[in-house]
Amino acid sequence: MDELHWKTAITSVEPNRIALRGYPIDRLMGTISFSQGIYLALKGELPDEKIGRMIDAILVSSIDHGATPPSILAARTVASTGAPLSSAIAAGVLAISRLHGGAIEEGMEQMLSVARRADAEKISEAEAAARVVAEAKATKKRLSGFGHRIHTDDPRSKRLFDPSGELCLAGRHLNIAAALEEALAASSGKRLPLNVDGAIAAVLCDLGFPTSVANAFFILSRVAGMVAHIEEERHREKPMRRIHPSDHEYDGPTGREVK
Amino acid sequence: MDELHWKTAITSVEPNRIALRGYPIDRLMGTISFSQGIYLALKGELPDEKIGRMIDAILVSSIDHGATPPSILAARTVASTGAPLSSAIAAGVLAISRLHGGAIEEGMEQMLSVARRADAEKISEAEAAARVVAEAKATKKRLSGFGHRIHTDDPRSKRLFDPSGELCLAGRHLNIAAALEEALAASSGKRLPLNVDGAIAAVLCDLGFPTSVANAFFILSRVAGMVAHIEEERHREKPMRRIHPSDHEYDGPTGREVK
Amino acid sequence: MDELHWKTAITSVEPNRIALRGYPIDRLMGTISFSQGIYLALKGELPDEKIGRMIDAILVSSIDHGATPPSILAARTVASTGAPLSSAIAAGVLAISRLHGGAIEEGMEQMLSVARRADAEKISEAEAAARVVAEAKATKKRLSGFGHRIHTDDPRSKRLFDPSGELCLAGRHLNIAAALEEALAASSGKRLPLNVDGAIAAVLCDLGFPTSVANAFFILSRVAGMVAHIEEERHREKPMRRIHPSDHEYDGPTGREVK
Amino acid sequence: MDELHWKTAITSVEPNRIALRGYPIDRLMGTISFSQGIYLALKGELPDEKIGRMIDAILVSSIDHGATPPSILAARTVASTGAPLSSAIAAGVLAISRLHGGAIEEGMEQMLSVARRADAEKISEAEAAARVVAEAKATKKRLSGFGHRIHTDDPRSKRLFDPSGELCLAGRHLNIAAALEEALAASSGKRLPLNVDGAIAAVLCDLGFPTSVANAFFILSRVAGMVAHIEEERHREKPMRRIHPSDHEYDGPTGREVK
Repeated sequence: MDELHWKTAITSVEPNRIALRGYPIDRLMGTISFSQGIYLALKGELPDEKIGRMIDAILVSSIDHGATPPSILAARTVASTGAPLSSAIAAGVLAISRLHGGAIEEGMEQMLSVARRADAEKISEAEAAARVVAEAKATKKRLSGFGHRIHTDDPRSKRLFDPSGELCLAGRHLNIAAALEEALAASSGKRLPLNVDGAIAAVLCDLGFPTSVANAFFILSRVAGMVAHIEEERHREKPMRRIHPSDHEYDGPTGREVK
Repeated sequence: MDELHWKTAITSVEPNRIALRGYPIDRLMGTISFSQGIYLALKGELPDEKIGRMIDAILVSSIDHGATPPSILAARTVASTGAPLSSAIAAGVLAISRLHGGAIEEGMEQMLSVARRADAEKISEAEAAARVVAEAKATKKRLSGFGHRIHTDDPRSKRLFDPSGELCLAGRHLNIAAALEEALAASSGKRLPLNVDGAIAAVLCDLGFPTSVANAFFILSRVAGMVAHIEEERHREKPMRRIHPSDHEYDGPTGREVK
Repeated sequence: MDELHWKTAITSVEPNRIALRGYPIDRLMGTISFSQGIYLALKGELPDEKIGRMIDAILVSSIDHGATPPSILAARTVASTGAPLSSAIAAGVLAISRLHGGAIEEGMEQMLSVARRADAEKISEAEAAARVVAEAKATKKRLSGFGHRIHTDDPRSKRLFDPSGELCLAGRHLNIAAALEEALAASSGKRLPLNVDGAIAAVLCDLGFPTSVANAFFILSRVAGMVAHIEEERHREKPMRRIHPSDHEYDGPTGREVK
Repeated sequence: MDELHWKTAITSVEPNRIALRGYPIDRLMGTISFSQGIYLALKGELPDEKIGRMIDAILVSSIDHGATPPSILAARTVASTGAPLSSAIAAGVLAISRLHGGAIEEGMEQMLSVARRADAEKISEAEAAARVVAEAKATKKRLSGFGHRIHTDDPRSKRLFDPSGELCLAGRHLNIAAALEEALAASSGKRLPLNVDGAIAAVLCDLGFPTSVANAFFILSRVAGMVAHIEEERHREKPMRRIHPSDHEYDGPTGREVK
């Protein structure tokens, strides 16, 4: 045994036997969804179906948002030079950082700090949210997870939180997100609705994920869209073209309905 | 309109309206699985549930294979320096190339060439497979997708192809994979069973995916396991430790059963 | 000793003693240039001053070519999201592939094949070059290293090969490059002068470098320019701006003279 | 003119005329060293020869430090999978982050804060250094740039600061580095000499570089060593081997002398 011997609790591999978090992987195949598998890999426990569907909804929500985000432009730019798929994906992933995707992690931190504050100071979540918003205003810090450059009423966050919907987990951090939105509106006189990053942040808090994996969900989801863009760049465009970051139009199918 | 104006058929984005391949994304959320969403992003069409389950099975199969593969070691090595999540993931993705994960793309090319050859030369798939194996032998080229360093009988490929299972698509390239395995055994006198890369290759051929996206499925799947390893590295190990590539042991739960 | 014990011939590290290819690194510092150090690291031998100056000239030639190349756009796009320096550089490096920078490697392969052919078929280099050009024409393969989208007469390749200049190594592959340019003009009726990639390819062949390190010189050189662009993006532009790939103008100092 | 029109002050490109920071690049070739070119790209001014030699010394100092640093292990791990050069380099660069190479940036920030404090509080640099060290101790923050896991007396920092040497710039931040070393020894009772990261930090402060480019010098320098390791991995080792992070030995030339 080498002095560098170490331990891992993720996967055991023996001849003809692979177990993820203790479950034979061939038994998981065909039984659980990829989303449940992601949850199992990260948390070490199999989620029930309701949580599995919530992870599915989160991961579907962020697959793509058109060709303007920097992750897509970086991936297309690298793909355009004839680079392999993994290089184009890696470049796109590197663009998912503080200002692009990072709002999920910051949003989680805010919501967790409202919860901690409500507990520590024995005040309501509404009061704790008001104090966090007041402090952010005093230090000129912008709150993450509210408002959107394009959408005044983000259909994705609405869907995640529709109380009549079967998705909604109705956890504590959903209430905190609503309290923050309220406090923000009271403080600024302008309502900035929870955006999809903020909504995902609240769900990940409710599911007990640490902030350090926040970006993983956005990255996993967006890599799927990225591959679609890389493929389109390879098959539809000339190599080494100059890629305009916003002057493009959609010419695919429209008005399709989900049954 | 800029002279660089261009078109894309993936996602349309208007205020409060985002549509992936023509479907409102908020309607997809809660209705389809992430795996179906990936298929939709890449192919432009919603898969039926059977295909959705097959994509789920493929993506679950490759989430993780322990801490020895280079993608995991590269990701852990970068995570160990205090780098952000996206940097560690990007490094891991870059290790998925010709010799690691690449067998899926090569396997697809082989199977497609057997199919083309059977059609062009009006011979059986068994005969076409035998010719492809003979040529590979003559040029000392190794066939991809057969045999495994550790598993003599890969439980993952068995699961994907169990004819009694509900997963099996029973498509043409499954037959071709079997024909190649047979021809290989006849030629070398030694049976190398189809491994998980070969099995995924056959399924992707049957689903009509181009070889250029082959690695995307492996990358998407393995990024999930990568995040679990990055998190474990960050929370369980000392920063900047020296990571032994193989002298580690599993100490997580064992013997769990999927209900 | 672990069964994975291995050997390396690059650098020995002992307490208070570091030697690169056998030379104490503190003795190299202040004595050799970085370019000579790069040569030493890659070849294992210290170059003389003339070769050191040639490496300097190559590395200076490719530091930057404005903001339009994909490596710069990828690096700026990632920098614009608030990502760390190493992430932006990594994304830029990933854009240096087959169609961007890759002409150096392909150019080297062509020149080496002309040399091998002249030797094997006992013909002149001019004749070997003509045969290589004819075959490329027959198979519709484009020769790398000739012509430029913007420059009809690349000042950088002229400088590397000016026979009156002190830089010029006047080696065999310089002659081969000239023979290829000649054969190309005879075959197409149009003169495409050797570009900077082709010139660097000829020099690297003359210096005995393997084709596998060809891109290393371009990458090392361009990373310097990339850092200048990343810094400019961070300090001069708004975060998350949309970066037009070509509609920009130069507003720095002009008409400066090198003494 | 597109509404996204923007400006850059790095390089102007016209047909047959490329100027870096206003200097024709073909005139720079053969006249300045690569190190001077890097300084020009980053600062916008040509350095004199003394500064050029200092940049050379810095860049030579960090070319390589053996096969154990995570940047080298990440690069070798990716190279071992058959990935292209740019992928292996990108993975290596991504490992240069907070705990590996990051000490240069942190060291610069400390030295600049000592200088600001001495100016603002009208105290000596020795006194300012003592206060910075005391505060670091109180908040259990480790100072960057002092001490080394292997070297008790780093030959590289000695070389950069040898007052009898022609390299030494004898600037303010050299004094501050010495004052910090002194204050640290007085506070802890143990002398931790300035390491190479700390020495480079002091030089970069003296040369007026912003902290945001600190890592660029380390990255540029180490990419050179990285390429040597990638090449050695490709040509000397089996693909997909398991790379022990420390159990390797040097078998190259020894005892060579720089004339």
